[in-house]
Amino acid sequence: MGERGDIVLPGWQTMSYFSDVSNLCWFLEPEFAHQVRRLHSLVGNAVVDDGRFIIVGTGSTQLFQAALYALSPPDAAEPMSVVSAIPYYSSYPTVTDYLRSGLYRWAGDASTFEGDAYIELVCSPNNPDGSTREAVLSSKNGKTIHDLAYYWPQYTAITGAADHDIMLFTVSKSTGHAGARLGWALVKDKDVAQRMTKFIELNTIGVSKDSQLRVAKILKVVLDMYELPGNKHRLFEYGRRQMSMRWRKLRAAVKASGIFSLPEFQSSLCRFTGEETETYPAFAWLKCEKEGVEDCESFLRNHKLLTRSGRHFGVEAKYVRISMLDRDETFDLFIQRLLSLR
Amino acid sequence: MGERGDIVLPGWQTMSYFSDVSNLCWFLEPEFAHQVRRLHSLVGNAVVDDGRFIIVGTGSTQLFQAALYALSPPDAAEPMSVVSAIPYYSSYPTVTDYLRSGLYRWAGDASTFEGDAYIELVCSPNNPDGSTREAVLSSKNGKTIHDLAYYWPQYTAITGAADHDIMLFTVSKSTGHAGARLGWALVKDKDVAQRMTKFIELNTIGVSKDSQLRVAKILKVVLDMYELPGNKHRLFEYGRRQMSMRWRKLRAAVKASGIFSLPEFQSSLCRFTGEETETYPAFAWLKCEKEGVEDCESFLRNHKLLTRSGRHFGVEAKYVRISMLDRDETFDLFIQRLLSLR
Repeated sequence: MGERGDIVLPGWQTMSYFSDVSNLCWFLEPEFAHQVRRLHSLVGNAVVDDGRFIIVGTGSTQLFQAALYALSPPDAAEPMSVVSAIPYYSSYPTVTDYLRSGLYRWAGDASTFEGDAYIELVCSPNNPDGSTREAVLSSKNGKTIHDLAYYWPQYTAITGAADHDIMLFTVSKSTGHAGARLGWALVKDKDVAQRMTKFIELNTIGVSKDSQLRVAKILKVVLDMYELPGNKHRLFEYGRRQMSMRWRKLRAAVKASGIFSLPEFQSSLCRFTGEETETYPAFAWLKCEKEGVEDCESFLRNHKLLTRSGRHFGVEAKYVRISMLDRDETFDLFIQRLLSLR
Repeated sequence: MGERGDIVLPGWQTMSYFSDVSNLCWFLEPEFAHQVRRLHSLVGNAVVDDGRFIIVGTGSTQLFQAALYALSPPDAAEPMSVVSAIPYYSSYPTVTDYLRSGLYRWAGDASTFEGDAYIELVCSPNNPDGSTREAVLSSKNGKTIHDLAYYWPQYTAITGAADHDIMLFTVSKSTGHAGARLGWALVKDKDVAQRMTKFIELNTIGVSKDSQLRVAKILKVVLDMYELPGNKHRLFEYGRRQMSMRWRKLRAAVKASGIFSLPEFQSSLCRFTGEETETYPAFAWLKCEKEGVEDCESFLRNHKLLTRSGRHFGVEAKYVRISMLDRDETFDLFIQRLLSLR
């Protein structure tokens, strides 16, 4: 990207709370919204027609809470049940419950949930195990939030434009700018979009304009690269090459060890690249098959390998989650140490 | 400030979640922390010695919630009572209660609160009425949060360095960059600082680095101006001149009307400027003295003047809050319309 992604922010700029008073999401920078629409149009991973509302958030973590707030009845006697099929993203239970809200409450594994009213979180490709997912529950009073943080061409085949009621995306996993703390939701229903906006107003009175303007610039440069014919500096292809290389190294190390296993994925036709492609998740879901090892996280920590135990994801401690997005040096050191295990 | 306040952010910069893993507040940019310390040292409005923790937040609204979370026992049977003396900032009750948290709950006017355990919010100078305040409650089990958003030389005399357990500040009211959504807390106790950091981790996984770096640059330029002898481009003096002029206009209009009154403030010696100075609050707390008018907000709205009713601040509707920080054109139009009332 070179210097093309630089942005200059003058000292006097963007001082007001407001970005666009005519927009339902009044703190959404129009240029950021424009680049988000352009991005989805290029990649083809989500429907982003004019009827869809864009809500910007301080990362998708804030948008997740905004969606819980928007989907929970404000005056119910009991908190709404929030569920997700195991293994689920370890932050879902923690972030749902840390304020002990009377509006919503973590209720565990969606697959074993009994009840009619719920909010189901569907993460696809799934964090931690990389699987492609759909909602497991279905009910007139049930709602779903689709967390599509990883539905980008560097991680998986783009098989079609997702068209759900609430879809969450984040800059952290699309371009990798986690430090900008920026995400966005695509929302079908106007009332839901309004309540999500209200949540962000109450929670942080809007979202950093500096991050919105900067990320808009970065997205613009990324997208412009796809309009120059024959250009080789294309983000998603670069990301896919990196992920593919890392997964090759990881699979080789796991095979050599003989004591671990990894999920297998079917390849699919990616409509973005036009090629049959494998899935290369941002996290690897490693299972320890070694006899006598019940706690894989401890076993690996004893060998100076830091992972996150399956227990946080609602399953057995034989599983751990490994980040595939660390720096090259860290990742290569991880592979070296893994190779030394038998 | 001219171009000196500009910042260039390269596309590749600040991608990680982490700013400083060695710091308790791991998402705090060291350069932002450095400029915050420099700022308080110059202005002399708060103790910022090395023992004090700086926690950065997405505006002081997020830090307020972080402090409620940090001060509420995690396993109490009843939510902690949150109180503030009337008239209190209208967002305190709303932001405390929107998630119906089991940890804390709005309990109204501090002056009439009966009980031993509470969190008292002390805003000084106070939003909405500009009064200088201290805590009204005192108890072994009581905690205080000092909201010092307006304790800057453009609004009031700096009579000494505040030295409370938790002090909240925001860029919105110090330099006026509300769009950056950036605030900071100065915290004495390590456990409290840790729990506030945890809240922000769960709420938004940190705070925009782009805003932190940009505001650090803006503060640096503001502060550098005070190190050049004889320099006339000094932010706080400029702000004070603007506020003083606006208050003069407002007081003249109110006097001419004969149907309103405003609070009077005593002047004090400002240790920052070395001069005896009046208070020029960011909001004016207007009382309607006209017979037959009980709802001042409606009365003013009928004359195309938008204000916020005293009811939101816990008092009678005879009061309204007026923003003194709008653009020049809007403020002047406001004064013109006010002058037409009798």
